[in-house]
Amino acid sequence: MSAKDSPSDKPSPNAARSGAGPRRLKVALLGCGTVGAQVARILLQDAAELAARSGAQLELIGIAVRNTATRRDVQLPAELFTTDAASLIDQADVVIELLGGLDPAGTYIQRALRRGASVITGNKALIAAEGAGLGALAAENGAQLRYEAAVAGAIPILRPIADSLAGDHITKVLGIVNGTTNFILDAMDSTGAAFGDVLAEAQQLGYAEADPTADVEGHDAAAKAAILASLAFHTEVAMDQVHCQGITQITAQDVADAKASGYVIKLLAIAERTAAGISARVHPALLERSHPLASVRGAFNAVFVEAENAGDLMFYGAGAGGAPTASAVMGDVVSVARRLAAGGPLPLSSHTSPATLVDFAHIDTRYWIGLSVSDQPGMLARIATVFAEHGVSIEAMNQSAADDGSAHLRILTHRGAEAALSSTVQALGALDTVASVTSVLRVEGN
Amino acid sequence: MSAKDSPSDKPSPNAARSGAGPRRLKVALLGCGTVGAQVARILLQDAAELAARSGAQLELIGIAVRNTATRRDVQLPAELFTTDAASLIDQADVVIELLGGLDPAGTYIQRALRRGASVITGNKALIAAEGAGLGALAAENGAQLRYEAAVAGAIPILRPIADSLAGDHITKVLGIVNGTTNFILDAMDSTGAAFGDVLAEAQQLGYAEADPTADVEGHDAAAKAAILASLAFHTEVAMDQVHCQGITQITAQDVADAKASGYVIKLLAIAERTAAGISARVHPALLERSHPLASVRGAFNAVFVEAENAGDLMFYGAGAGGAPTASAVMGDVVSVARRLAAGGPLPLSSHTSPATLVDFAHIDTRYWIGLSVSDQPGMLARIATVFAEHGVSIEAMNQSAADDGSAHLRILTHRGAEAALSSTVQALGALDTVASVTSVLRVEGN
Repeated sequence: MSAKDSPSDKPSPNAARSGAGPRRLKVALLGCGTVGAQVARILLQDAAELAARSGAQLELIGIAVRNTATRRDVQLPAELFTTDAASLIDQADVVIELLGGLDPAGTYIQRALRRGASVITGNKALIAAEGAGLGALAAENGAQLRYEAAVAGAIPILRPIADSLAGDHITKVLGIVNGTTNFILDAMDSTGAAFGDVLAEAQQLGYAEADPTADVEGHDAAAKAAILASLAFHTEVAMDQVHCQGITQITAQDVADAKASGYVIKLLAIAERTAAGISARVHPALLERSHPLASVRGAFNAVFVEAENAGDLMFYGAGAGGAPTASAVMGDVVSVARRLAAGGPLPLSSHTSPATLVDFAHIDTRYWIGLSVSDQPGMLARIATVFAEHGVSIEAMNQSAADDGSAHLRILTHRGAEAALSSTVQALGALDTVASVTSVLRVEGN
Repeated sequence: MSAKDSPSDKPSPNAARSGAGPRRLKVALLGCGTVGAQVARILLQDAAELAARSGAQLELIGIAVRNTATRRDVQLPAELFTTDAASLIDQADVVIELLGGLDPAGTYIQRALRRGASVITGNKALIAAEGAGLGALAAENGAQLRYEAAVAGAIPILRPIADSLAGDHITKVLGIVNGTTNFILDAMDSTGAAFGDVLAEAQQLGYAEADPTADVEGHDAAAKAAILASLAFHTEVAMDQVHCQGITQITAQDVADAKASGYVIKLLAIAERTAAGISARVHPALLERSHPLASVRGAFNAVFVEAENAGDLMFYGAGAGGAPTASAVMGDVVSVARRLAAGGPLPLSSHTSPATLVDFAHIDTRYWIGLSVSDQPGMLARIATVFAEHGVSIEAMNQSAADDGSAHLRILTHRGAEAALSSTVQALGALDTVASVTSVLRVEGN
């Protein structure tokens, strides 16, 4: 054990009341990428204002990076940089983790919390995987753990859900929480272009990574869905409990047909509570164009919340980017600093209960099915019979002729269980009048 | 002094840690109108959940009303009702004030805070008039004062501004914070009807009061603008410092012309910080239809926030109504209860500085001017000369012929000082080619 690990060096939450003048808080920053560089800038530039806001002097004592030679923002004082994250953590009252990824970020956060240092992170993957355990570790050690920046960048959404709506019952959360996929779907909607072409354009413009898998397959949104479901329903939903489907199968035809019917296709992170339990899922969905989420354009994010008393709420803003995400991090920093400056015990966090998750097969949803069919007598009757046999009722059907003499059919169902809808689609695919099932999408928002 | 006023009967914030089991908190409700009845219902129905959320048992000990015979919601236990508000306050740990108006609400709140009881209120008029003094009184007595429900009903907006954005710099807040006027303007926009007709319809539907003055003249929005400006800029702006103009002069022609040019007219509560100081104002304004606030329909509210790091954010939801407003009240109740259950000192609230208010004549804005003119040679040249003489530059001009042979002119200016724009309009009115200045509206949102 080094001298830095001795008990006398532990952060002392109650020290504030004994000393004269504002409390000094040592802040360690882990990571100096796009967001970290902005956080460092704000901590240095706005020191006086942050002290007025929080009641504590926030002193940036160091920035841990993997290699000090490659740090991005050379305008920051060189002496702040170190490769020794552990030593930095062991001197800090507040640790800001912006490394991303599970490891070593998780190890560092645990090290900080065990010392009683408070932690602010924007690490959605880590919180989705280990949030409950880290929260418990923070509580055991009288430390605070905050992660507003992990979902929807600059938008204050986690605190409104956890605090402002704490006296209400949230029934559903629908979020556009991935800017890359919203940029792609919005461009497909406005230009009529195909997924692959728009993805390539998004990569050129910097809206999509060279390896876009985490975004376009919905994994990034799934981590956020787990966090939203956990907070909205006072429970613990892990990322691997989130049903996840991305947008790679969405065709230009899907987008055009949806548009013609008054819908827009969005990738939604959904957290829902029904009598049967909680459902957390990510999939593309049709939304009516009059829905508040339908007008969320480009790389913007928005989270739509339905609560029993509050009714419908929406929170809108930038979902990513250095300065916007840094704004969310700094909101958490000020909040943590206010508590540390006041001293005394932390308010209890909301009691959580184990989640009863509804199997994806049992969620209630509506399907919008695209079929390529041979236009022969009795075709519609045979298709309608398949729906009837599975107890699924049809809300609307639309037929258009294709160039090759076949027909293109779009069927919108009423609400039904996912399993019934899914087996209906299987049975439709087996009909000899059906050449192919061209698409299956769900409808949300009403 | 009665026995109830004795020191031993004061709420004791630190008691929580000494006793076994969850802390019991006595809650007094003042007022049982539309919102109060919903708050009482939630406190009784959701007692177990509220305890899980807050860590404290919330016990509704009484509801003070003016006349127990006229209480609205007969499903509430009759024994809860009393006309003796003072005695009720003197027994409470938490007081929820939903009477509205300055008096006796202000007296009651002071009585509660002096005892160290925490107060939750939805009283925008009182907070706009006396918020700073009440906040200081709360701090002196170690009590909490919360008023999320005072602005934009169910929408969590005050806490995001005060807490989530505490590490950022807000530059501007544009709010649609009055449902009645938004309902009227939205109906005028969709139907083309005149103000008076739509107002009458809104009164029939219950969206407007029999005496609609506070809404249509902008007074209600001005109280909210004062609160938003105070929180956004860490200062104290009183309601009488808010420049206020209502919507009674908006004509069907204004709405139609705005629509034809791609704008919508909204009544905005504006809080803005420029190099010259702070401006807080309420007036109708043109917004481009692509602006996120433009699509806020009916009686809904929304608050658009521009911050240096976060960029543009928007918060949207129900601005009034019993259950939605009760949701905001209950969010504050849980938050207050969590702190009381934890015990210990309160975090310091953000330091405020006196406001340097910009005189309305010096704000920077754009005008949209309607003129009825006689269409004679040189008319446009004379009008353009007036603009040039006042140093105001024209962005767009649009002329249409009226039935009587005169012409209707719409002029959109570039940005200029309010005083220069206003004297330009005066000079235009004095021209003999100008029959009348039919409207003067400002343009916001870019």
